Amino acid sequence: MTTSIHDSSVRGFASDNYSGVHPEVLSALTQANGGHQVSYGDDQYTEELGSVVAGHFGEGATIFPVFNGTGANVIALQSLLPRWGAVICAATAHINVDENGAPERMGGMKLLSVPSTDGKLTPELIDMEAWGWGDEHRAQPLAVSLTQSTETGTLYTLEELRAITDHAHSLGMRVHMDGARISNAAAALGVGLGEMATGTGIDILTLGGTKNGIMFGEGIVTLSDGPAESMKYLRKMNMQLASKMRFISAQLLALYGSDLWLTSATHANAMAARLSAAVEATDGVELVYPTQSNGVFAELPNAVADRLRERFRFYDWNRAAGQVRWMCSFDTTEADVDSFVAALSEELAAN
Amino acid sequence: MTTSIHDSSVRGFASDNYSGVHPEVLSALTQANGGHQVSYGDDQYTEELGSVVAGHFGEGATIFPVFNGTGANVIALQSLLPRWGAVICAATAHINVDENGAPERMGGMKLLSVPSTDGKLTPELIDMEAWGWGDEHRAQPLAVSLTQSTETGTLYTLEELRAITDHAHSLGMRVHMDGARISNAAAALGVGLGEMATGTGIDILTLGGTKNGIMFGEGIVTLSDGPAESMKYLRKMNMQLASKMRFISAQLLALYGSDLWLTSATHANAMAARLSAAVEATDGVELVYPTQSNGVFAELPNAVADRLRERFRFYDWNRAAGQVRWMCSFDTTEADVDSFVAALSEELAAN
Amino acid sequence: MTTSIHDSSVRGFASDNYSGVHPEVLSALTQANGGHQVSYGDDQYTEELGSVVAGHFGEGATIFPVFNGTGANVIALQSLLPRWGAVICAATAHINVDENGAPERMGGMKLLSVPSTDGKLTPELIDMEAWGWGDEHRAQPLAVSLTQSTETGTLYTLEELRAITDHAHSLGMRVHMDGARISNAAAALGVGLGEMATGTGIDILTLGGTKNGIMFGEGIVTLSDGPAESMKYLRKMNMQLASKMRFISAQLLALYGSDLWLTSATHANAMAARLSAAVEATDGVELVYPTQSNGVFAELPNAVADRLRERFRFYDWNRAAGQVRWMCSFDTTEADVDSFVAALSEELAAN
Amino acid sequence: MTTSIHDSSVRGFASDNYSGVHPEVLSALTQANGGHQVSYGDDQYTEELGSVVAGHFGEGATIFPVFNGTGANVIALQSLLPRWGAVICAATAHINVDENGAPERMGGMKLLSVPSTDGKLTPELIDMEAWGWGDEHRAQPLAVSLTQSTETGTLYTLEELRAITDHAHSLGMRVHMDGARISNAAAALGVGLGEMATGTGIDILTLGGTKNGIMFGEGIVTLSDGPAESMKYLRKMNMQLASKMRFISAQLLALYGSDLWLTSATHANAMAARLSAAVEATDGVELVYPTQSNGVFAELPNAVADRLRERFRFYDWNRAAGQVRWMCSFDTTEADVDSFVAALSEELAAN
Repeated sequence: MTTSIHDSSVRGFASDNYSGVHPEVLSALTQANGGHQVSYGDDQYTEELGSVVAGHFGEGATIFPVFNGTGANVIALQSLLPRWGAVICAATAHINVDENGAPERMGGMKLLSVPSTDGKLTPELIDMEAWGWGDEHRAQPLAVSLTQSTETGTLYTLEELRAITDHAHSLGMRVHMDGARISNAAAALGVGLGEMATGTGIDILTLGGTKNGIMFGEGIVTLSDGPAESMKYLRKMNMQLASKMRFISAQLLALYGSDLWLTSATHANAMAARLSAAVEATDGVELVYPTQSNGVFAELPNAVADRLRERFRFYDWNRAAGQVRWMCSFDTTEADVDSFVAALSEELAAN
Repeated sequence: MTTSIHDSSVRGFASDNYSGVHPEVLSALTQANGGHQVSYGDDQYTEELGSVVAGHFGEGATIFPVFNGTGANVIALQSLLPRWGAVICAATAHINVDENGAPERMGGMKLLSVPSTDGKLTPELIDMEAWGWGDEHRAQPLAVSLTQSTETGTLYTLEELRAITDHAHSLGMRVHMDGARISNAAAALGVGLGEMATGTGIDILTLGGTKNGIMFGEGIVTLSDGPAESMKYLRKMNMQLASKMRFISAQLLALYGSDLWLTSATHANAMAARLSAAVEATDGVELVYPTQSNGVFAELPNAVADRLRERFRFYDWNRAAGQVRWMCSFDTTEADVDSFVAALSEELAAN
Repeated sequence: MTTSIHDSSVRGFASDNYSGVHPEVLSALTQANGGHQVSYGDDQYTEELGSVVAGHFGEGATIFPVFNGTGANVIALQSLLPRWGAVICAATAHINVDENGAPERMGGMKLLSVPSTDGKLTPELIDMEAWGWGDEHRAQPLAVSLTQSTETGTLYTLEELRAITDHAHSLGMRVHMDGARISNAAAALGVGLGEMATGTGIDILTLGGTKNGIMFGEGIVTLSDGPAESMKYLRKMNMQLASKMRFISAQLLALYGSDLWLTSATHANAMAARLSAAVEATDGVELVYPTQSNGVFAELPNAVADRLRERFRFYDWNRAAGQVRWMCSFDTTEADVDSFVAALSEELAAN
Repeated sequence: MTTSIHDSSVRGFASDNYSGVHPEVLSALTQANGGHQVSYGDDQYTEELGSVVAGHFGEGATIFPVFNGTGANVIALQSLLPRWGAVICAATAHINVDENGAPERMGGMKLLSVPSTDGKLTPELIDMEAWGWGDEHRAQPLAVSLTQSTETGTLYTLEELRAITDHAHSLGMRVHMDGARISNAAAALGVGLGEMATGTGIDILTLGGTKNGIMFGEGIVTLSDGPAESMKYLRKMNMQLASKMRFISAQLLALYGSDLWLTSATHANAMAARLSAAVEATDGVELVYPTQSNGVFAELPNAVADRLRERFRFYDWNRAAGQVRWMCSFDTTEADVDSFVAALSEELAAN
């Protein structure tokens, strides 16, 4: 008989990946179990998920569940590009800094990164690399990838998204949204998922799941013509086709087939806001970025951070600058935040 | 609230991937939930899994959990090869026919396939492609990949495995075992997992999970020096690093930390033997390969197969030759087999 | 001052790559020298070559000069395939056995090879791998690659070529001709280059040069719609774009802008025929394949071959079977052949 | 009979690739012709080139001739890196901006580019990306690539090179020098080729040829242990192995087996200096970078540049900033420079 070997009372602010699985998602996995279902996606849960996704993103939207965000991003971008394509992204983008070159090595694409002070792209930033079409010496910029909410916790407004897609489309480029935390963004902006992606002209979306309380699984959602046809082959050759796919689909169904995506994300955002407010009210620690979703980026003495880290796990963001990242998730409680703030104050005082 | 939307009483013989999750595995997922655990593999379940794997395969063995078998195979083979390496395998090998070229496209390797009548390699078959070292025009054969049990349900004896590894090693090649169904093989042979892999000189192993009753997850187990060092980078860049890895490790722990791997595989094998015996006793249908693990390969008129398929799902193996594949899994029951055999007899009689 | 450091009187039958450069080609290089020409293909020699190629292959044909045959083949095939494509070819094809996996590793494609007794494909052989479209697990067979003349010196008739392209096209596949020795084939068949390629429905051609007396350079010739658009990017990213391209184009112009391609190939074929006739008239040595172009494949005792090789260089073709390959080129003389035949007779007699 | 179809009196300042072939190189090609030589590098010219290279770079140095600089750079870098490696380079480096992503797509590497005001790296600039070893999420920085002379015509001193190699080596990284214009650099600095590369601790070198008066061909020169072993396989699989290699080697031999590399580069540099001095003496046009080798970078009104371009070909460097690039080569004459300067003055006056 298997038993729990970890202390489930331990929580911290390291990552929304440190948290486990929402009880409703676990229940959905149980419900999806039993009997036989066709493998590789021809099951009833994946079919139902398709309807749910069409409900969110429009009739033309198709979802292709995959294992993780790296896979979703690489496949989504491959589907937008010929073999000689390049992707314009922020230098801080996850695809640029956290995927060990998977987009280049596996996807065969070049990333053209531009500096961004807050993790967001703008038409002007895009223009730094949006040139050279027709010149065979240059990897051809044919896609833009943006992250919503960004790696620094900031948000694009719908107007900002539309400005980017209009600009990119006018230049013959298509737009990918890395929505690993799209729920946090939609919750914060008070808009629907489709309103934020389909409505702003996004061509293809990485629909996050894992960071919002599911066990594993993300979806690639095609929103414009073209990519969907190639997706099934790309997913397989990129080693992202799950045999027992019903168990990814059932989780995404639990998340997006009800308000769970929204309530969990709203809660995580609220916890970040609570923490952020406390930071603002505390001397010796400063916000680095405005807190717009479920992450709080703060600057404080490294020595204080290190002592605090012995009590609650979290990561440095920029050690040289004394910046740290505190993430909230669906299971962060007000008590977690308050204990953390108290500990922060103690360690600051002890400095 | 999520509900089950499928009829869990439906079962068939299509694939061990059509079945769901063993109750003990589902329980293990629940036990592993709650609280925070370090992501990307620095969690307590992955640590414990390491001990369990060392127990099976020896102190030098290290496991790297990944999402699926395609990923495990590609990464394992990459770790054995320089950029100019090639892999000798049976023409029927899963890596050659069922992975949409992932080993070539993502792994950058060449497969040198040899014909095999029963899905098994031999030193003689290997020698068909084991030549040309030092000739830069030839993709250098530096690894052999074999599958245990094979795609046709056949088994290598320990002596046959040792003959292959001795031969390969004497030629400077290393040996990968695709053990997607290694539990079925060990159960059938009545040997331990380590006895079959480490004991026969295998260098690296794809340790199966999904086909033996877990939800998702396979392990790459390094058995000889070298590959382990590169594995963490290869796993990440191949998009196979799970963020909430505790949930892969907890499943593999449920399977391999008890006798569950053995009892489930033994049961599946027994169901295949029951079905095989019935086939042998039935006129109008013949075995194509000896039934040595959990798959039964039979030859019968296509028209009969098609009518039978309307009642129980299964796949053609070689339509032109009138060959079909019937797979048993941990959840196949004697009643399933008996119903199926009865239906088979009826459809044969109706021919 | 540079001087010749080799003995230019030494000749053999090892390869049409061992020979040097035809005097007219060397003269063309001198003519193309001097002054400045736009690099990377916007020069007058490349422009003129385009006209010459259109003259041979029709108005729609476009040539893209590259450095070598490996590059030409990989780029040509990439241009026919989506990222998930596969190529059906003979097991003996140069792309399958002599390019260290470049098609797989650099081109990202899978080769589906079929056995062939004489190096030639047929619709029936193609059908061994022409199946499984729509199944994402299978690398999608979307191109056929054939070699004219083949690696074993045999030839496709125009009717055989047409049968293959008709068959391939009817299945949605496109056809690449590896024409490293296309001149020898056309000369032997007594047909024009365009008649053999465009006229038989070939989609894209590797137009050989190096093996027929030029210094370096091959051309990719697009014969059907589509590939030409992507070619310039593919050529560059595959590292096959020559900066001083005028010097490739001038050579191809010398070859294909006059009858030089034909007279050189006709001569090489005639020398092979002379050698082949002598082999047929000699006891103790047998032809392995019919001599249809500029290569003679013979079977004789390895000991005899080895002694003969000390006097004239050539390669084993299949050591185990006692088969050797003797290639003739533009600079092979009747005296070369006669001396070689005499030596062969002496060594056979000495056996 | 082939004839010259271009006007060899036309010259400009567009690129050292626009110029043709030095007469001594053409003569060397003629000398190397005739008779048979073993293909793929086992010829006498390649052997002799090996001795010459060892004379320049030391006994441990080995040269591997390839077709072009893109190929040389990608192969050289691959040889320094495991599959998960990354390369730190200047954002302006040729490998980053002018090779259509070949290093990423074909080489499977990630480039970590850093901003540089003059095209040169420094230890401090390298440190911007030299971090994160051991973190599997980060493409591992294991090589540095620098260009001598740089894309902006500037030079590293020997001390600057040594500071970079010492720094890189201390961090476990190896150093590649893109020496497409290494002769211009050595000539300008008044040092030997080996003094500049081997003597400063460079690990592997792209030894240029095409930009200094040969027809085609570059060499990869391994200067430290390790890379040489893998080179022959990498060269072949990267489609850069010339069959009639004697003709690359003979050219490199003509260049580096005498003082031709030095006299040609010295001349090109002198012409650039002449042009640069004239620019400094002319109102309305300014140098952008100091003129240290064979390129002059100038800022002038776009309208003037466009009119001047109708008389002499050259490229914009940065159109938005009104910057242009004027390159001199082995065949640039004083009269060319003086005519150009006169035309420049006329167009400036007409503005």
